[in-house]
Amino acid sequence: MRVLVLGADGYLGWPTALHLSHRGHAVGAVDNFVRRQYDYELGTSSLVPITHLQRRIKVWEEISGLTVEPFIGDLNDPVFVYDTLREFRPDAIVHFAEQRSAPYSMIDRAHAVYTQVNNVVGNLNLLFAIAEIDPSVHLVKLGTMGEYGTPNIDIEEGFIEITHRGRTDVLPFPKQPGSYYHLSKVHDSHNIAFACRIWGLRSTDLNQGIVYWQETDETVLHRDLATRFDYDGVFGTVLNRFCVQAVAGHPLTVYGAGGQTRGMLDIRDTLACVELAVTNPAERGEYRVFNQFTESFSIQELADKVVDASSAPVSVTNIENPRVEKEHHYYRAAHTKLLDLGLVPHLLERSTVASILRVAERHRDRIDSDAIAPSTNWRNASAEVPEHSEVGSTLS
Amino acid sequence: MRVLVLGADGYLGWPTALHLSHRGHAVGAVDNFVRRQYDYELGTSSLVPITHLQRRIKVWEEISGLTVEPFIGDLNDPVFVYDTLREFRPDAIVHFAEQRSAPYSMIDRAHAVYTQVNNVVGNLNLLFAIAEIDPSVHLVKLGTMGEYGTPNIDIEEGFIEITHRGRTDVLPFPKQPGSYYHLSKVHDSHNIAFACRIWGLRSTDLNQGIVYWQETDETVLHRDLATRFDYDGVFGTVLNRFCVQAVAGHPLTVYGAGGQTRGMLDIRDTLACVELAVTNPAERGEYRVFNQFTESFSIQELADKVVDASSAPVSVTNIENPRVEKEHHYYRAAHTKLLDLGLVPHLLERSTVASILRVAERHRDRIDSDAIAPSTNWRNASAEVPEHSEVGSTLS
Repeated sequence: MRVLVLGADGYLGWPTALHLSHRGHAVGAVDNFVRRQYDYELGTSSLVPITHLQRRIKVWEEISGLTVEPFIGDLNDPVFVYDTLREFRPDAIVHFAEQRSAPYSMIDRAHAVYTQVNNVVGNLNLLFAIAEIDPSVHLVKLGTMGEYGTPNIDIEEGFIEITHRGRTDVLPFPKQPGSYYHLSKVHDSHNIAFACRIWGLRSTDLNQGIVYWQETDETVLHRDLATRFDYDGVFGTVLNRFCVQAVAGHPLTVYGAGGQTRGMLDIRDTLACVELAVTNPAERGEYRVFNQFTESFSIQELADKVVDASSAPVSVTNIENPRVEKEHHYYRAAHTKLLDLGLVPHLLERSTVASILRVAERHRDRIDSDAIAPSTNWRNASAEVPEHSEVGSTLS
Repeated sequence: MRVLVLGADGYLGWPTALHLSHRGHAVGAVDNFVRRQYDYELGTSSLVPITHLQRRIKVWEEISGLTVEPFIGDLNDPVFVYDTLREFRPDAIVHFAEQRSAPYSMIDRAHAVYTQVNNVVGNLNLLFAIAEIDPSVHLVKLGTMGEYGTPNIDIEEGFIEITHRGRTDVLPFPKQPGSYYHLSKVHDSHNIAFACRIWGLRSTDLNQGIVYWQETDETVLHRDLATRFDYDGVFGTVLNRFCVQAVAGHPLTVYGAGGQTRGMLDIRDTLACVELAVTNPAERGEYRVFNQFTESFSIQELADKVVDASSAPVSVTNIENPRVEKEHHYYRAAHTKLLDLGLVPHLLERSTVASILRVAERHRDRIDSDAIAPSTNWRNASAEVPEHSEVGSTLS
């Protein structure tokens, strides 16, 4: 199949592009490198060195004999989106190309507005381009388990049958997202469901859990194929961050009581899930939702796993929670649809944690301990005082 | 109370500003006149002549002795929003200032993107400004009954108690909006609920039905106090549009089978509902939803009412439905919260329809019959081919 991967220079986009290429698909790689700009803005870097997209693609071609075609541009530019679809003519589009950090979206007003405009407009441009150029294209969109929040009932995959005052309907599962970033994904989901309904588009919304680990079958083939490893307080996700703290001799910082429970998955399962979605497309007019995670853990449990897998002694400290979230709550979420399609999960073994620790150890000299602490607090609106007009709302 | 009315030059914003002023509140009137720009873009006009905001405010002051303070600017400009809140120091903000036409949002990609960016960013700027300047300000936000769509169960006011696999929670009512405009209101609702939760803001989301009629106690006091009357295929709402068709000797154009049922209300009840929300504010941290309508009718029933109230013979024709919507469906929606606060509805009597017909008759020479037909079809994505980059996404 011809698969266009959007956000193909990012943490998951890059290994997904490689994986799909390896599995025989013709892959186009779209990116505008804004993720690398966030690093400049925040003064952070990937723990594992990463090279340019052009270099990555060249090395992959040398090793595999397979070509990945780059398209450099911004989804917020509709001309670029339309031109790219007309040129590449994809069968499926895998859409990773959104600002994906909750803390980044909570920095201040400008970052909240940027996140929602960037994500929602890019996705709208894509929906219109698909509808106008080729409505048979299957949109595989990355959403997040965070769209659901933590309701006191079981979370289903996108829809729930509700019986109310004697009548029954299957309706979108209610959403209680926990940041302006998570909200942007909820907005996207509603827009996509509508486009499928009125235009007969087809889409799979992958409500993904928190991804851990960093190496895949393809990225390990050459140093220049490595994907990024984020451990900072803004873009670093919890398990990767804990492993870096352990290696740096820093206490693992659990936010609040640590009872927050989330669905999680191994990066290799992200690749497998995306391929399963691509090769088993939704029907025309169908908007379907898969909950893309394999196991649930509380933050405290993850800290305990890192302590257990570390060779050196590691301490754990509970710091004030910068987020507004329940720290003890019910959590049970369905995730059978990808298993039914054949997913065989990599579960979170002690050996996986040890592998993450080894990566952190290998790049110990690149760890910036100052970058790990949370720098954004959900409770404070920014003290930012806008000083100039910025209609059109970019970061400027 | 000090009440800032956003969109105070519009169909409902202007009479609301007058009503609140008349009832003793100190009123600030915010607008950027973009509604008048839509008229230039579409080649349409209000059936009833309207004058400038400055003239309206002057006439009101001469008649009532009451001052309404104008603030001219765009909610997408955060400097304007922050400056206006700092200067006026409102107790409550009534937010009508969004692009409010479903067909307008469906014209093409650019109009869909414009509608969502304009509405979502304006509202985000407002939330941040309230949080940073005075979190005690009560935000009274105009939403729409169209956020719910037409589920096969009773619609509740914003939230629904769901029992699922033996557990129970009260969750946001699932949303199935029917246009990019309606989607923008769903996005707003999620953003507002989140801001109330994390910052302790207070907000009332008024999910309003379709408004009919055009005269209020205040607007009838002088010709220059009149509010607009839209009957065109893009901004005209159904009952007002049918009355103009009847007067023009044109068949009433019912979209599709006409079984589409919607909540409706008299413009005078809009004013009363907004005042009830303002004078009975939400608690700090509370996000509450009122369904703001008084009766439900099918489109066919409305056509029949216009036929019945017309002195001359009027025919009805069912045209191909430009929208994608169910034409026969269950519809029962709760609307008790405003009644509990004391709303005494104006029901849709034959005499009300006759009054709308008289307004249309009075301005018969201003009717442009070509403007009435629907010009936007939900099924077609635009044939628009973007020819220049427009990152930042305005209509340009």
